[in-house]
Parts: sequence; C-alpha cells; structure tokens
Amino acid sequence: MSTPPIFDERFTGELAELFAWRRDVRHFHTRAVETAMMDDLLASACRAPSVGLSQPWRLARVRQEERREAVRAIYRRCNADAQSLQPAERAGLYARLKLSGLEEAPEQIAVFIDPDPATGGGLGRATMPETLAYSAVLAIHTLWLGASARGLGLGWVSILDPVAMAGALDVPAHWRFVAYLCIGYPREPSDVPELERAGWERRAPLADVLLER
Amino acid sequence: MSTPPIFDERFTGELAELFAWRRDVRHFHTRAVETAMMDDLLASACRAPSVGLSQPWRLARVRQEERREAVRAIYRRCNADAQSLQPAERAGLYARLKLSGLEEAPEQIAVFIDPDPATGGGLGRATMPETLAYSAVLAIHTLWLGASARGLGLGWVSILDPVAMAGALDVPAHWRFVAYLCIGYPREPSDVPELERAGWERRAPLADVLLER
Repeated sequence: MSTPPIFDERFTGELAELFAWRRDVRHFHTRAVETAMMDDLLASACRAPSVGLSQPWRLARVRQEERREAVRAIYRRCNADAQSLQPAERAGLYARLKLSGLEEAPEQIAVFIDPDPATGGGLGRATMPETLAYSAVLAIHTLWLGASARGLGLGWVSILDPVAMAGALDVPAHWRFVAYLCIGYPREPSDVPELERAGWERRAPLADVLLER
Repeated sequence: MSTPPIFDERFTGELAELFAWRRDVRHFHTRAVETAMMDDLLASACRAPSVGLSQPWRLARVRQEERREAVRAIYRRCNADAQSLQPAERAGLYARLKLSGLEEAPEQIAVFIDPDPATGGGLGRATMPETLAYSAVLAIHTLWLGASARGLGLGWVSILDPVAMAGALDVPAHWRFVAYLCIGYPREPSDVPELERAGWERRAPLADVLLER
C-alpha cells in the first residue's frame, strides 16, 4: 500500500482531452503496433474492475489470415442483413458508411467472457449475471483509453453473429462473445464521432437523459 | 476540427496510476460533492462512446430520502438472498464484507438504458442488442475514471433486483436498469481491490485469459 496520488488540473484537463479524442476508428494504417505496447495494453485491460473480482474476460488475439477472413465473412453477411433493415431514406447513407477496419487493422482482438467463472465466488452477480459481460466492457474501455493515449485507434465491431464468432475462432464452447476490436494507427484522428461527421446522428445534451428523483 | 493532442509519457504514466487507484469504493465520507464537479462528471459520462451513437444511457440522480431508503430495502433483501447462496465455508467471510456505500454516499446515480432509442438509427446493434447496455457501461466507466481523477470514489452496486429498482425510482416503464452508483469522498483510498484485501479473491495474470488464434 502506498500513498494515493493527487491528480492535478493539468492531468484532469488532459484526461478530458483523451475522452474527447478517444474515437471509434474504422480507418487504419496497416503498420504494425509495437509488441511491447500491445502487451502493456492487454495487461492493463485485465486490471479493469470486475464484478466480485471475477475477471471474466477472455481474449483471443487473432493473427491467422484464415481466421481473419472468417471474421470478415461473418461481418459481410451481418452487415448486408443490417443494411436491408434500414428504412429506404437511410439505406443510401448506411451503404456509404465505413463501419469496420477489419480489412487493414494490424491488431485484432476478440473479447469473450466465461459466463460462470470460478473466480469471484459468484459475488455481486446473483441478480444481474449480465454484470460479467459488463466487466468485460470495462476491460475493453480501459484498453481503448490506453490505446488512444498512445496515439493508437480502436474500433469496436458489433455487426457480427456472436455464435458464429465463437465457432470461427474455435474458443471453448462455454465462452460468450462480447466484442471484436480492431487496433492500429488511425488515418484521420478526430474529436468528432465519425457517425456525426457523416450526418448519421448528433450528440445529445445531458439534460435530455437526466431525471431527478 | 483541431490538431490531435500528443500525450506524453508523463500523462500515460499518470493514466496508469489512475487505472491502478480507480477502485470500487464502499466506504465514503458523508461530505457533499461540489455541484459543479458532479455536473462536469455527468456531462463527461454522456460523451462516452455508444453503439451507432445511440447514447442510450438514462440517468436518475437519487436525492430523496424515501427513494434512497427504497433502494436500501431492495439491497438488503437481495444481499440476504445472495448470502444464502454462498457455500458454508464462504458465508462467514461474505457476511463480513461491506458491499455497498448506500448508507452514507452523498451522491447516488441509477443508470438505465432506453432499450429502443430513436437515436442511432439501429446501427450496429441488429445482431447484438446488448451493445446498448454496454454503451451505458462505457458511460459509467468514464464517470468512474473522471471521479477518481478528482479524488472521489465510486462504488457500483449490483446486488439489486433490476425490476424492483425501476419501480422504486418510478422511471419510464420501458427503461432497463443497468447499475446503481454511489459517489463520494473515499475513506480508505487504495490501489488494491477491497475484495483482494479481504481475502475474497486475487487478481489473475494476463496469460490465464489470453489465447492466440
């Protein structure tokens, strides 16, 4: 145990900048991410908070080209289905959006959970088992922020069939798919979401989502 | 659009310290959190990433004493049930753990999602609707880190019945409960999880959770 740090205004200001520039990135350079940097980021993600200290996250680092192509095939199929669900007036804009960096991102990480981990002794999740997946999301966000602070970009791909993903990556049968992450150096850093720049959606003010009780 | 910031090693070092000291806090001082600080933190949380820029998070800031007591009553019931599920050899340790700061935390925020928000146009969630709840978790983690950087502590209470919580807080019927957050100044800041200090669980190395594919 050591003395708690005091974070000064310079740090909190830079943290606010990090939050502002931490974008979902879909345009990557193909150059490799340094090995030590990836190792640090993955280790840091696994120190994220988790329900009952259950640490339920399971990671698959996807490097083999045939595995990556299997993921892209799942994405192409799911994205075609998703596009067909869009109303006519949005379909054209949807088709023009680039929604993943699967083709070029040098690092690709599939995130799963063990839905019944031995660690944690079940604490905190009896009424809300979904907190296991939420814990994996906290690890993903830790990785995302750490990557952004090092000039990397991360894109979260969710237009995927979770069951097909587990099969394509040949992970233990009881694991449950949470997310697929593309990581690399971003082509166009921005502090405005790509979907906002493309005219898909705008950001809402706090007052729209806050109740007093 | 401005120029992307370059975060130096001092910042990434301090960010690592923030990750290390961002604990789940269950022991709070009762003194109030400054209003402007809470406003900043809540606004920052609502700039978190979200699937399809859907911003599905909905927040209820719980101040009324009768509402807080209703939440504590739900917690006491759920925690008694959870304790009865523990194996005999863990029940004593479980009973000694302090698992929430509901009695004393000066700020308490219930987090819900709108499970079918108009914002976002459905993008990114056709195959994985749970990404809406995951987006709220990203907002919670943004709030958590911002609070920790300002010397505050946050405790995520999940030993709650989600349906009862929506009723107790009288939120719109279609909202879905994600988390209840206690916020205030921490009594015992630490860089070691309270459940680890109490002997409940230990942290696992990255090698235990990482596959290569």
